[in-house]
Amino acid sequence: MALRRGLYDVVQASLTGSIIGNSLLVLGLAVLAGGIRREKQTFDRAAAGVGSTMLSLAAIGLVIPALYHWTAEGAVARHALSPESETALERGLSLEIALVLFCVYLLSLLFSLRTHKHLYAGQDHAAAHDRPAQGARPLLTLLVATGFVAWMSELLVSVVEEATHQLGLTPIFVGVIVVAIIGNAAEHSTAVLVAMKNKMDLAMNIAIGSSTQIALFVAPVLVFASYFIGPRPMDLRFTPFEVLAVGLAVAVVNMVAQDGESNWFEGALLLAVYLVLGIAFYFLP
Amino acid sequence: MALRRGLYDVVQASLTGSIIGNSLLVLGLAVLAGGIRREKQTFDRAAAGVGSTMLSLAAIGLVIPALYHWTAEGAVARHALSPESETALERGLSLEIALVLFCVYLLSLLFSLRTHKHLYAGQDHAAAHDRPAQGARPLLTLLVATGFVAWMSELLVSVVEEATHQLGLTPIFVGVIVVAIIGNAAEHSTAVLVAMKNKMDLAMNIAIGSSTQIALFVAPVLVFASYFIGPRPMDLRFTPFEVLAVGLAVAVVNMVAQDGESNWFEGALLLAVYLVLGIAFYFLP
Amino acid sequence: MALRRGLYDVVQASLTGSIIGNSLLVLGLAVLAGGIRREKQTFDRAAAGVGSTMLSLAAIGLVIPALYHWTAEGAVARHALSPESETALERGLSLEIALVLFCVYLLSLLFSLRTHKHLYAGQDHAAAHDRPAQGARPLLTLLVATGFVAWMSELLVSVVEEATHQLGLTPIFVGVIVVAIIGNAAEHSTAVLVAMKNKMDLAMNIAIGSSTQIALFVAPVLVFASYFIGPRPMDLRFTPFEVLAVGLAVAVVNMVAQDGESNWFEGALLLAVYLVLGIAFYFLP
Repeated sequence: MALRRGLYDVVQASLTGSIIGNSLLVLGLAVLAGGIRREKQTFDRAAAGVGSTMLSLAAIGLVIPALYHWTAEGAVARHALSPESETALERGLSLEIALVLFCVYLLSLLFSLRTHKHLYAGQDHAAAHDRPAQGARPLLTLLVATGFVAWMSELLVSVVEEATHQLGLTPIFVGVIVVAIIGNAAEHSTAVLVAMKNKMDLAMNIAIGSSTQIALFVAPVLVFASYFIGPRPMDLRFTPFEVLAVGLAVAVVNMVAQDGESNWFEGALLLAVYLVLGIAFYFLP
Repeated sequence: MALRRGLYDVVQASLTGSIIGNSLLVLGLAVLAGGIRREKQTFDRAAAGVGSTMLSLAAIGLVIPALYHWTAEGAVARHALSPESETALERGLSLEIALVLFCVYLLSLLFSLRTHKHLYAGQDHAAAHDRPAQGARPLLTLLVATGFVAWMSELLVSVVEEATHQLGLTPIFVGVIVVAIIGNAAEHSTAVLVAMKNKMDLAMNIAIGSSTQIALFVAPVLVFASYFIGPRPMDLRFTPFEVLAVGLAVAVVNMVAQDGESNWFEGALLLAVYLVLGIAFYFLP
Repeated sequence: MALRRGLYDVVQASLTGSIIGNSLLVLGLAVLAGGIRREKQTFDRAAAGVGSTMLSLAAIGLVIPALYHWTAEGAVARHALSPESETALERGLSLEIALVLFCVYLLSLLFSLRTHKHLYAGQDHAAAHDRPAQGARPLLTLLVATGFVAWMSELLVSVVEEATHQLGLTPIFVGVIVVAIIGNAAEHSTAVLVAMKNKMDLAMNIAIGSSTQIALFVAPVLVFASYFIGPRPMDLRFTPFEVLAVGLAVAVVNMVAQDGESNWFEGALLLAVYLVLGIAFYFLP
């Protein structure tokens, strides 16, 4: 796995890619496909609002270490802080933030499976045939997610190495865009299918929920795991452009999710934002 | 024209100025004037929501090249990238983003004139006497907009030169604030008049729609045109403060537009944000 | 007082701390405590929307001088501007922005006490026993607030000096986190109590209103006062991380306030954002 080899840049790029891919590409395709023959589709604002606020918190948690790094760099440049102690501080910060994110993940299970399950109940029932494990068996979901991440990381390293050599693409573009598109194919097809059946609540839940799960569960678990199986502790210091892409993706999702209505043009706007970010990642040196 | 002479800084400043002027000053005046004797005014949340999400996408498209530049600068400083190839990459990025923005503009015409024209229908009908061309004749609107931009650019260069010399104002302040106020006088008066007649849907549409049109139509067309009539290709690399001003303006417009209600104090808040940004541009060295 | 001694860093840290403490910690605790045995709590979207938009304007006003500073620093580095004239420009900018913020504060009194007092009327009536001065006697509130700030500043300096020496905490952590928690204890208990009585309108008003009052009244008054009693004029140039924390806090409050509903998990999310920011301030060198 990428983690074991210490290829943390690649791991972080694939985390970013999964978050913006699910928030913009999956959600955009679902909203576009669902809205193409309808005037509008509606969904429950409360559930979508909680989901997009949770995604925002997750994004804040993930970008803080990078922002911290820019501040600390100034102190290093002024010789007020040694580079070694800066790295140690960043790892400590990342570990504590990972703990907070993981606790929020556990609380979100309590919220969606216990205290407010009726918010999600309708969709689960309706979606029983589409996606049996949704919500009902969290432990199984966790295991599947973990296995999925392991498999994706595996895929990642081989794809990155091949694509970088043969197609002349940069590793960051492959990690953020290519791997995320391949890795999230299941979410893509499920979200688009349920959106076309006018089950927008479930489609929003898959798209936003997958992004949130990556940020609140997969990212912290990778940080914890790096202490045991990685060559050195992993931090959550994403590159500036990754920070930016996650921030913009979350902001746009919030705008679309807040009003409880969607139409094909909002889907096209989400895809356009994804396209603009993809172009920028392609051009990144 | 400024474009032909290659004064791209001035062109970019006037684009920024038009966007923040329409979003904050025009909308602020309209909301304030309309709300001054009423408890509140209501407007259609769906139309305003689509408009402000479209404006956000447009703003993201416009600011990405500047953000890209800051990232690439680091690579140039590390000698990983030559300044020439950085400039070439930035022009390529700007051109592709301009293409995406222009396609979204065409899709927005399809949305507002074909699939969802009923969202805007009421206002057009009601506003038939105020603004006959609104929506009904897009091609004419395009031509008028293009001619208007040409005239504004002309005005721009002469105003900038005079004001800079005689009043001691900086070119960026003249471009962002002075020219935008003069150039958008038509939008100002129309938006304020319809807001006072309690047609807030139309007022929002004029203010947000004008900003969006600048960003999705005028900016890309200027980029395309620079390849033919300019001395060199124009990019979309705005200055950091322009990026900031556009981002904040769009965020504030989203807050005001999301809830479907407005009152005089929200108008005053929009004007205050404009004033704060104007003061900052005045003080910019 | 910290102001008289010219300890402007400490004053600014406590302003930031009060804003994020009220927006995230006080609001988070209130929403969590109020939501713990209820499915959801509702509040008036119009009042909460105006409050959070006002808070956003205030945050924009407060962070502009720091953003201006980063831009101007480039000019200083290029020797296009002397450091002395940069400092003078920043003080001028801070003073004018303080004036705008103060005018908005006066307008907000006009809004909440005169033209739209019915928005806040229900809560005042209901809360007459909990908080008699709320809204009814603005001048008294102003005086109390001013006295409170004076007392807090006093407390601040002694706490900062002691804590820094004895506990090994950094002055910025003490200023932003410790002092704000102690100094806002009154808001904490009141907001939590009224939220538990299901008066969410009042709880939102206390939390968001206190943040806004700090930014629109206390901060400008401190700038004005620094011209008379400080050793030199104070500017509003916050540190990058303070800017970031205020921006993120305001964005999260907007998300929670926009939909007019709250539940315990939204409270937990607000607290988690506060925790993440607190951890980052703790690790700051």
